[in-house]
Amino acid sequence: MTYCVALFLKAGLVMLSDTRTNAGVDNISTFCKMHRFETPGERCMVLLTAGNLSISQSVVNRLHEGVSIGDADPETLATVPSMFRAAQLVGAAIRDVYNSDGLAMKAQGVGFDASFLLGGQIRGRGMRLFQIYSPGNFIEATPETPYLQIGEHKYGKPILDRVVSYDTPVQDGVKLVLVSMDSTLRSNLSVGMPIDLAVYHRDDMQLRIHRRITETDSYFQHVRDHWSNALRQSYGTLPTADEWWAGERQV
Amino acid sequence: MTYCVALFLKAGLVMLSDTRTNAGVDNISTFCKMHRFETPGERCMVLLTAGNLSISQSVVNRLHEGVSIGDADPETLATVPSMFRAAQLVGAAIRDVYNSDGLAMKAQGVGFDASFLLGGQIRGRGMRLFQIYSPGNFIEATPETPYLQIGEHKYGKPILDRVVSYDTPVQDGVKLVLVSMDSTLRSNLSVGMPIDLAVYHRDDMQLRIHRRITETDSYFQHVRDHWSNALRQSYGTLPTADEWWAGERQV
Repeated sequence: MTYCVALFLKAGLVMLSDTRTNAGVDNISTFCKMHRFETPGERCMVLLTAGNLSISQSVVNRLHEGVSIGDADPETLATVPSMFRAAQLVGAAIRDVYNSDGLAMKAQGVGFDASFLLGGQIRGRGMRLFQIYSPGNFIEATPETPYLQIGEHKYGKPILDRVVSYDTPVQDGVKLVLVSMDSTLRSNLSVGMPIDLAVYHRDDMQLRIHRRITETDSYFQHVRDHWSNALRQSYGTLPTADEWWAGERQV
Repeated sequence: MTYCVALFLKAGLVMLSDTRTNAGVDNISTFCKMHRFETPGERCMVLLTAGNLSISQSVVNRLHEGVSIGDADPETLATVPSMFRAAQLVGAAIRDVYNSDGLAMKAQGVGFDASFLLGGQIRGRGMRLFQIYSPGNFIEATPETPYLQIGEHKYGKPILDRVVSYDTPVQDGVKLVLVSMDSTLRSNLSVGMPIDLAVYHRDDMQLRIHRRITETDSYFQHVRDHWSNALRQSYGTLPTADEWWAGERQV
């Protein structure tokens, strides 16, 4: 399994991915699911991957080496003129892998399971964030729904639903994705440390932070401890129902 | 979908269920998923149901009218001598429904999907909490893992994982299941209000609270507001990563 989350904020992008892959519970490994495509000052993109590792690695390879959309000449994420075209290119790369491996996988009962988050900006164009599905179609984050998730998304969603908005500052977004990841790590063993963080500030054309966060990272440890304590305190300060329902007949 | 949760605490049981059923997103209804089997002073049991409504209703009917385990005479939840036998009886009722409807459902592509939480106590015996699966097999909550969930369990699990323990007082357990339900209600439209709460204190042989909680319940409203505000405050008081990682090279 995998958990990747990306925030689309007024001030920038915050993207976070775990690194665990597994083929059954007795065969786990560590693979980076965050791929950076950057020409500093000119363009900056980050791709997060979930699903079958052979598919996502094949897609990333094609995005470096060149993929054709329809009958056009091959393009790469370093040459596409817009983020929309970049999302289309990821879709084309997925379809390419499907045409190459999809039927053989299906014949042996392996689902063609892959999804991607692509965020970034090209100079002179808008900053955008897309989620691309395994058929190659995609959706885009908007100020109304300023985050996207792939993989094991449920455990880490409540905190995002309650707190994140388009106006959330980037440094607060970093806190939120770390809390969201922590909730997921605690509940699903197939999502695992270390985790990779990318932070982009709008119109920067290069990443501000690209960091591998390990178990021993003192900031992440602080976030985990602070959050657990805060939740315990918050529930401690809730009044009990007895006080509210005391005068009412219960049964 | 459904969300049901039950806490197995040193001091008692706390059980909570939503009431939404749906056949597609355009056909939703309200059905009680909490069933009470009580002979005050002698025995007290609560059964929570998830899955296909026709299966759970048929199971509940059989538990009232009598089911045979193997070649034994028919029993009901009012006659079984122990909670273990009660869990077996729920399993036998599920198998009965499977034998009656399972093949016809399968022939039309409808999965035999049902799960149950059964908690309670019979005078002179221990208080117990079971989760019964659709094949009729079951597991039991223990002090080490003092809660069980059925249905849409993921959104409401992080708060339980972080806070609940066997020593949690019953009135604190009520807060926790309400917060857990609130997180689920916010994230999954197919889990819906009103909700039903049952609270049992060990050795009482009758429910202390059996309450339908609606949107206008002032305590539940307070819990929702308090919790949202507390989460926002907690994340507000987290230091930003900038302060911790300032001296380090990022990229």
